[in-house]
Amino acid sequence: MSSRLTAGDLQVITRVAVFRGLKSETAQHISAPATALMLRPHEWIMRQDDPATAFFIVIDGWVKLYRSTPAGDETVIDVMTKGDSFAEAAAFTGSRYISTAEAVTHARVARIPADHLVRCILANPNIALSMIASISSHMHHLVQQVEQLKAQSGVQRVADFLASLSVTKQGKCAIALPYDKVLIAARLGLTPESLSRAFARLKAVGVAIDASHVIVKDIAKLRQIASDERSAVRGTLRPIY
Amino acid sequence: MSSRLTAGDLQVITRVAVFRGLKSETAQHISAPATALMLRPHEWIMRQDDPATAFFIVIDGWVKLYRSTPAGDETVIDVMTKGDSFAEAAAFTGSRYISTAEAVTHARVARIPADHLVRCILANPNIALSMIASISSHMHHLVQQVEQLKAQSGVQRVADFLASLSVTKQGKCAIALPYDKVLIAARLGLTPESLSRAFARLKAVGVAIDASHVIVKDIAKLRQIASDERSAVRGTLRPIY
Repeated sequence: MSSRLTAGDLQVITRVAVFRGLKSETAQHISAPATALMLRPHEWIMRQDDPATAFFIVIDGWVKLYRSTPAGDETVIDVMTKGDSFAEAAAFTGSRYISTAEAVTHARVARIPADHLVRCILANPNIALSMIASISSHMHHLVQQVEQLKAQSGVQRVADFLASLSVTKQGKCAIALPYDKVLIAARLGLTPESLSRAFARLKAVGVAIDASHVIVKDIAKLRQIASDERSAVRGTLRPIY
Repeated sequence: MSSRLTAGDLQVITRVAVFRGLKSETAQHISAPATALMLRPHEWIMRQDDPATAFFIVIDGWVKLYRSTPAGDETVIDVMTKGDSFAEAAAFTGSRYISTAEAVTHARVARIPADHLVRCILANPNIALSMIASISSHMHHLVQQVEQLKAQSGVQRVADFLASLSVTKQGKCAIALPYDKVLIAARLGLTPESLSRAFARLKAVGVAIDASHVIVKDIAKLRQIASDERSAVRGTLRPIY
């Protein structure tokens, strides 16, 4: 189901990373022909290999990006939420979508047509610089993911993921898992069994998980575990968790 | 050591992906203030976290991009060769380099100053669209790497890597490994031991490796192994390799 954006939607999307550095009028001009998609869980937003005719900004809810094989296996590339944008690069270049986007929860997503955006850029090159900055931050995120997958243990990836859900710097804190454990495992490149083992090991350092509720005794310690290098994990820190 | 670009260098760099779709004069205008870096193995080109003042195009040789931890561990993100460009996104946005670039072999690399490029874009927005296309293809490549790391077995990643070094579609072919096995392992997110095990398993399907020389009995079969999904590897194909 799609409708016009509300004033509240516009307020969210003109503030997101993809429009950073642009005047509010410019962001509103780009968003003028945008529509809002209202999605139920499992509804898709774009499909891998389809021509890229738009890019998207999540206004509310959670959306997963995944790639699938002809046999139907899927690999989760990323999970996006409020303020995240995706498919800018494909939309600009008139190429095809790299992945499929599907709502994980009920979600509201703004759809911005690509042809309008390209016209805006040709009229105002500053928009291009701002969009390159946004695409560049996606790249940074992907590079970090490659780094994590190559260098971090399962426990470290889980610690990093949990720590990223909290803004607390030290002491005790409560975290709500944003989506189910199967998706968390896929997002982190783990099997569900490895995720369970990582949770069990984190219990020893004061991370208690009950369904989607997580209580962390000392978030600073969790961040420490996430950032410790492999050598540290293999060496002295190992016995602790 | 740096010097002016030769006519031959210009010919290479104006044809690369990053300038695709631009007129030859436009590409030459962008490259006008570029210099050529002559590098020996282990010399660095840019350093992670330094301000991004330029972007780079490999004219000849091999260059690795890696990220390092404070303790000195490194994670190889990618290995680039002739015609590949890197650090466009960081250079445009005046941010910092995401990774360190270091020559693996003797290499010749063009360095294009960022401030000049931004001036070119503001004067000609078509350049921005072309650069976004190039950055987008890096993203695509990173997404594929994330997918491989999450979904492909070690044997599949090695088969994919070997197949990517040959343009032959079927039958017997010879492949020269472009850099040493430690770097190949790091590029594929494997330990050197897992790489050796993957080579041993590929021997059973007619892949003979002697130092840096590889003879593949049937390249089509190698591509098949690379593209088969996990289920296939776990199931019927397993006993063969």
